Amino acid sequence: MKFTVDRAPLLRALSHIQGVAEKRNTIPILANVLMEHDGEVLRLTATDMEIAVVEEIPSEATHAGSVTVPAAVLFEIVRKLTDGALIEFEQKDAEGPLHLKAGRYETSLNVLPVDDFPAMVAGDLPHHFAIQAGDLRRLVDRTRFAMSNEETRYYLNGIYLHIVLVDKKNHLRAVATDGHRLAKVDVPAPFGVKEMPGIIIPRKTVTEVRKLLDNDGASVEVALSETRIQFRIGSILLTSKLVDGTFPEYTRVIPQSNSRILRVTKQDLAAAVGRVAAISQERSRPVKLTITKNHLTLSATSPDQGIAQEELDENSVTYDNDDMEIGFQARYLTDITDQIDAEAEFALADSSSPTLIRDTAEPAALYVLMPIRV
Amino acid sequence: MKFTVDRAPLLRALSHIQGVAEKRNTIPILANVLMEHDGEVLRLTATDMEIAVVEEIPSEATHAGSVTVPAAVLFEIVRKLTDGALIEFEQKDAEGPLHLKAGRYETSLNVLPVDDFPAMVAGDLPHHFAIQAGDLRRLVDRTRFAMSNEETRYYLNGIYLHIVLVDKKNHLRAVATDGHRLAKVDVPAPFGVKEMPGIIIPRKTVTEVRKLLDNDGASVEVALSETRIQFRIGSILLTSKLVDGTFPEYTRVIPQSNSRILRVTKQDLAAAVGRVAAISQERSRPVKLTITKNHLTLSATSPDQGIAQEELDENSVTYDNDDMEIGFQARYLTDITDQIDAEAEFALADSSSPTLIRDTAEPAALYVLMPIRV
Repeated sequence: MKFTVDRAPLLRALSHIQGVAEKRNTIPILANVLMEHDGEVLRLTATDMEIAVVEEIPSEATHAGSVTVPAAVLFEIVRKLTDGALIEFEQKDAEGPLHLKAGRYETSLNVLPVDDFPAMVAGDLPHHFAIQAGDLRRLVDRTRFAMSNEETRYYLNGIYLHIVLVDKKNHLRAVATDGHRLAKVDVPAPFGVKEMPGIIIPRKTVTEVRKLLDNDGASVEVALSETRIQFRIGSILLTSKLVDGTFPEYTRVIPQSNSRILRVTKQDLAAAVGRVAAISQERSRPVKLTITKNHLTLSATSPDQGIAQEELDENSVTYDNDDMEIGFQARYLTDITDQIDAEAEFALADSSSPTLIRDTAEPAALYVLMPIRV
Repeated sequence: MKFTVDRAPLLRALSHIQGVAEKRNTIPILANVLMEHDGEVLRLTATDMEIAVVEEIPSEATHAGSVTVPAAVLFEIVRKLTDGALIEFEQKDAEGPLHLKAGRYETSLNVLPVDDFPAMVAGDLPHHFAIQAGDLRRLVDRTRFAMSNEETRYYLNGIYLHIVLVDKKNHLRAVATDGHRLAKVDVPAPFGVKEMPGIIIPRKTVTEVRKLLDNDGASVEVALSETRIQFRIGSILLTSKLVDGTFPEYTRVIPQSNSRILRVTKQDLAAAVGRVAAISQERSRPVKLTITKNHLTLSATSPDQGIAQEELDENSVTYDNDDMEIGFQARYLTDITDQIDAEAEFALADSSSPTLIRDTAEPAALYVLMPIRV
């Protein structure tokens, strides 16, 4: 095996795939990247047996072949090579080391057998559609913060993607919840997506796919079955297992009749939440909202440090209903306001019922937040 | 007590002093900042009983007085207030909370008794001199990386500052060593410094003083005794205990007769060290230098990963002596090359003896590095 490759595309590909390679190294081959050259292109693969990422990059080969070397070490070396370097790879005999040469730098990397590298079988993927990277990114960004971390509730450790009918039109919907808050966003259903089953995309897959979505205009081809999903973005193919579980009936926790509407400027709200929460040393940093006509007081107390409050008046607040008080975790409130552009709309019931929060400029996204006692 | 202060100078002062306030909170009052207003200026003090920092800032008072509040909480709040805010402080009765108000934000902070705040007594400081911030920064920056972390060798946990005669002129010298490497730099002795005793400035004091030295042209007034040092920089006064120990006879470890001179371009050397060390997973990341006429090969091996090497030729290397090999820890070599501007000069004896390294453009600084077996 012998080929040359430019540093820039190799570094970019390794940065995409090295997050998938297993770091804990319990199974050594999973820490490796599989490099395969068919004479035309170089194909790099990393897998943790849950996710596999394959990326093809242009490369000139004298001898085709395949090899596996440690992904993290190769990434670190390529990162430190000079910008613009041409890198030569050569494996002289099938089980011998892989030689890497760039200018006056050279190294030889120990290999593991290509045959031991696990193949990720996608199987039959009957559903497929194309979606703009920008839309897919919106589905991910608006919801990922609400995914659960609790391993016992594995069916909440991801984003639930499914088709819904809204205003007689099919939409692709993403939902995530950890039981304390819920985030949901719709995008118009891409062509061909009508029949897909509801699926739960695991947390790590969400993270790895998100890395590949920086170019808004790019088209992402998605193919899926009940157990697997595959994303093709340019020359990158990411295949992942899906969470084998049932996502809860989330619509039941979305309040339908919250009638007290509070509108508040996002920037003023976010800054005030940060300032009043600064007084609290508790992990949950509870913040109390005291709401009166066109007036919102945020407050927090700390047994050690004292109390803090900030008032927002009619310049930032619109409210015309009964006076009320309600408490939220500062961090959860901030996670939601981070998603909101200019104005947040709260639909409230009472101080112990789930509250609905929206961006007034983005009706397709919706957040539910459970209050806490303050 | 009642006064107002602009956010900017208060934030700057708190950023200077909050690093000194004790975080571990075993003695609660040490986590507090003492705020004293004499009607003219506001004086902020933080101390951990080893170091005290006092900073004075302009402030208008209606009622003078003093109070202590948690430094970290106050810093966090002031940081989150709007740029340009005018902050009002008021303590209505002597043991009651301190109220803080800025625009529509207000908080009340619990206080601890001013009388419990420990005073740091500097005592008599018979030696004093003025030094440019740029010179003091050079003394710190060239040597701090070589300080020891080992608590058992407490006398190495700092920078040794003392007066030496070089070329018949007094110089102020900083030295630090951890037994593996040593760094030493001289600046011309400031006026009045002739008589000062050798002192060891503790690690935390080095860190805190360094934060105050960003303005090169500023003058720093230093006063010291055998047990205390005091730095006055503008309106900031930092007082610190000194390490109560004897710095070892460091001159004995500085080789005097290393005659093999290797000169190498700093940038090429640093990049090559980084690249070859990337192969090694060992903490010490040993790098071998194989030196022949105008030629340097850097190499590293890893039992798991293989080997790496890079050659530097006469474009980057000048050497005209016996061929030799020597090994160093990559990180120690990098710490030293980080101090060097354009060209490093190694004065070598043999592969097991201390090596002298200098910046050819800065003869006043010198580094000693112990080789390791490779």
